[in-house]
Amino acid sequence: MNIRFYNARILTMEEGKDIFRGQIFVSGSRILFVGTDEEAVKYWQDHPDTVIKWDREIDCGGNLLMPGFKNAHTHSAMTLMRSKADDLPLSDWLNNQIFPVEAKMTAEDIYHLSKISIMEYLTSGMTAAFEMYLTPYSVADAFRDCGFRCVQTSCVNNFSQSVELLEDYYNDLNGRDEYNSFILGVHAEYTCSKELLEKVAELVHKYKAPFWAHIQETESELMECVERYGMSPIQFFDSLGLFDYGGGGYHVVWTNEHDRQIMKDRGLFAVTNPGSNTKLASGIAPIKEYLEWGIPVAIGTDGPASNNCLDMFREMFLVTGLAKLKNMDASSVEATEVLKMATVNGAHAMGLMDSDVLAEGKLADIIMLDLYQPNMQPINNIQKNIVYSGSKQNVLMTMIGGIIRYENGKFNIGEEPSEIYKKAEEISKRIYS
Amino acid sequence: MNIRFYNARILTMEEGKDIFRGQIFVSGSRILFVGTDEEAVKYWQDHPDTVIKWDREIDCGGNLLMPGFKNAHTHSAMTLMRSKADDLPLSDWLNNQIFPVEAKMTAEDIYHLSKISIMEYLTSGMTAAFEMYLTPYSVADAFRDCGFRCVQTSCVNNFSQSVELLEDYYNDLNGRDEYNSFILGVHAEYTCSKELLEKVAELVHKYKAPFWAHIQETESELMECVERYGMSPIQFFDSLGLFDYGGGGYHVVWTNEHDRQIMKDRGLFAVTNPGSNTKLASGIAPIKEYLEWGIPVAIGTDGPASNNCLDMFREMFLVTGLAKLKNMDASSVEATEVLKMATVNGAHAMGLMDSDVLAEGKLADIIMLDLYQPNMQPINNIQKNIVYSGSKQNVLMTMIGGIIRYENGKFNIGEEPSEIYKKAEEISKRIYS
Repeated sequence: MNIRFYNARILTMEEGKDIFRGQIFVSGSRILFVGTDEEAVKYWQDHPDTVIKWDREIDCGGNLLMPGFKNAHTHSAMTLMRSKADDLPLSDWLNNQIFPVEAKMTAEDIYHLSKISIMEYLTSGMTAAFEMYLTPYSVADAFRDCGFRCVQTSCVNNFSQSVELLEDYYNDLNGRDEYNSFILGVHAEYTCSKELLEKVAELVHKYKAPFWAHIQETESELMECVERYGMSPIQFFDSLGLFDYGGGGYHVVWTNEHDRQIMKDRGLFAVTNPGSNTKLASGIAPIKEYLEWGIPVAIGTDGPASNNCLDMFREMFLVTGLAKLKNMDASSVEATEVLKMATVNGAHAMGLMDSDVLAEGKLADIIMLDLYQPNMQPINNIQKNIVYSGSKQNVLMTMIGGIIRYENGKFNIGEEPSEIYKKAEEISKRIYS
Repeated sequence: MNIRFYNARILTMEEGKDIFRGQIFVSGSRILFVGTDEEAVKYWQDHPDTVIKWDREIDCGGNLLMPGFKNAHTHSAMTLMRSKADDLPLSDWLNNQIFPVEAKMTAEDIYHLSKISIMEYLTSGMTAAFEMYLTPYSVADAFRDCGFRCVQTSCVNNFSQSVELLEDYYNDLNGRDEYNSFILGVHAEYTCSKELLEKVAELVHKYKAPFWAHIQETESELMECVERYGMSPIQFFDSLGLFDYGGGGYHVVWTNEHDRQIMKDRGLFAVTNPGSNTKLASGIAPIKEYLEWGIPVAIGTDGPASNNCLDMFREMFLVTGLAKLKNMDASSVEATEVLKMATVNGAHAMGLMDSDVLAEGKLADIIMLDLYQPNMQPINNIQKNIVYSGSKQNVLMTMIGGIIRYENGKFNIGEEPSEIYKKAEEISKRIYS
């Protein structure tokens, strides 16, 4: 498919580049051209032999095209438990509400339940998810069948999956199809023995690969590790060589200067999950400090059982809002920084180096935001409007790899929403009855 | 107009009443019937002589009807400054960014600028706003012309408006039209002299009327009052007799047990504004404590320059989320409490006793929420879904006084959105150039 967007405002998210009016040409899965109308004229002059038959030419009506948001941490199939286990602290929630239900979920259940989250990602302008769940193959199938970009890591721990499976996932899912890839990781320090982590460290060195895990989400997780090993999870992982090729942590709420020094030295990413950390009362991550240290921050929703909303607009507001509250300083963490976290940094954390900005040759992972809804008016400062007052309601279109998967409220994901909901309801009835 | 809604889920918000499936009949501005399909049959049997010609019969497709949300604190015309003055502390923001701009705004500007907020309220399922701004008559005109319910209070202070004007507003705006009413109030302790407040207290006693103000929003506001009068604003207002007929405060972030005792004794409402308090780093209000004391809490967005989003879904999440963080207890402030704050308590705070619940004889201030968006699926617990994962995108319809003002993304407010945006842009250019 060849698609031309015109009459658009464009935010490429390239460093130092402001919003301008212009056009984008998409050919197949990639961006052929991004520029002003004058630059488009020049493009045709410079390519006199190029003939493109446009399948669609889309008048953007002055609305905004920008890179899709990257959801840098989630567990998509947990739609099953959404609003089933709220108002509980993390350990209760996990041990008494989540683990017993997960024991009953099949790979096929997880395939169907993941699709509801994928739909919600599309409504929120996300074009990729950094996923961790129980059955990586069926998760990958769900993302592939919906045409949504997915980077998975494993939730291997003492009780489920194994290091052998982890290596299989790594080899099988990387390069299997155009939508899926896989990064080495484990569930968390508190669910993994030292022996298991040492074996994962061998894989990390064998493949010279980055490593990811839930890290220092709650204070008790931190303190238990300190009691066990005399150091924090970040320090412990690092002592095992797990970060020798980079990677990062999900949550990273409770860190000190020693942890941040390791994060900086190893080039680790901090993926923040403010909605989940708020709802589960885990705490407020030190985002201002990460920025001061030069540690790149990305943003994830976490799963629909903990958040429960999969909405990058809410997360973006919370990243800056909670930093302002934590520091009691309304100038903490500016909107432009937050937009970078939600797009470029997320892509880089996930290894999606071709989905970070809008530029020639990059993947066409593009969203269109409605600037003519009242929450964006008057158009004073578009970047600030997105972070402080943006909403799912502003998402007019979500394109992934050149294919429009969501447009004006309609989904194009290979299956009807009503069918997906019906299957989820059947699974819910079976498991909860 | 006579409108029948059928095939609906209905949440009346009456105490102890769960969601059921049924119908609602609206006749003129009021609700004629709410009940199950069986009760509807019985209604016709009991009213054999009643003949209603339905102007519309709306198939709700299993979606939810509930009372509209009440925005219990806002300054609508501040759309002008949205995203113009972010990332600043309250005093800087107010003195250097807001007051100088407000000095240039005319009553007509305020009329036009208010309409953008009214549109956003409609997109978020709000049916009434508790408004405070510079020119109450032109504000009232904007709300009347859009057909949106408005309760105003005055922002009288040492520098603008006067006690004489306050009394005029009170007499002129109460009963002027079906959409507007007026409640006595002042801007805040820190902008009003004792003499001014004493004169307002005379009005409070003359009309036996409740009294409202911005109260204890920031710690410095509290401490300055303690320095000035040896007591908090709540204690000071109470000492002047301002709360002799009830009322309440906006924000009320920084209160102690003495303040709460007064709030309880005087039957005061606490209107919380968590989005604004977060973005301006003012602090987290003690919502859990208010609930424990039996002090009714309502929810407001505050104005679009401070929040910047006018979204009751975001505010509801923040009310419970910030309470969870403040208390480091994920069980703090349950979702059902929050829904009550956003509907029933808001209506009662604003004196809208006929807009609180869905019941026969009440005003038809009704919204329809889409339960078949992915963020509401599977349908495990609708109340929790609304509070934790609801979004503007779920608002299918907003009806005020029996008239549908917003439906499937289209507005019915007497003027085209493009015209409203154009006027706001002209005003912005004039004032900021």
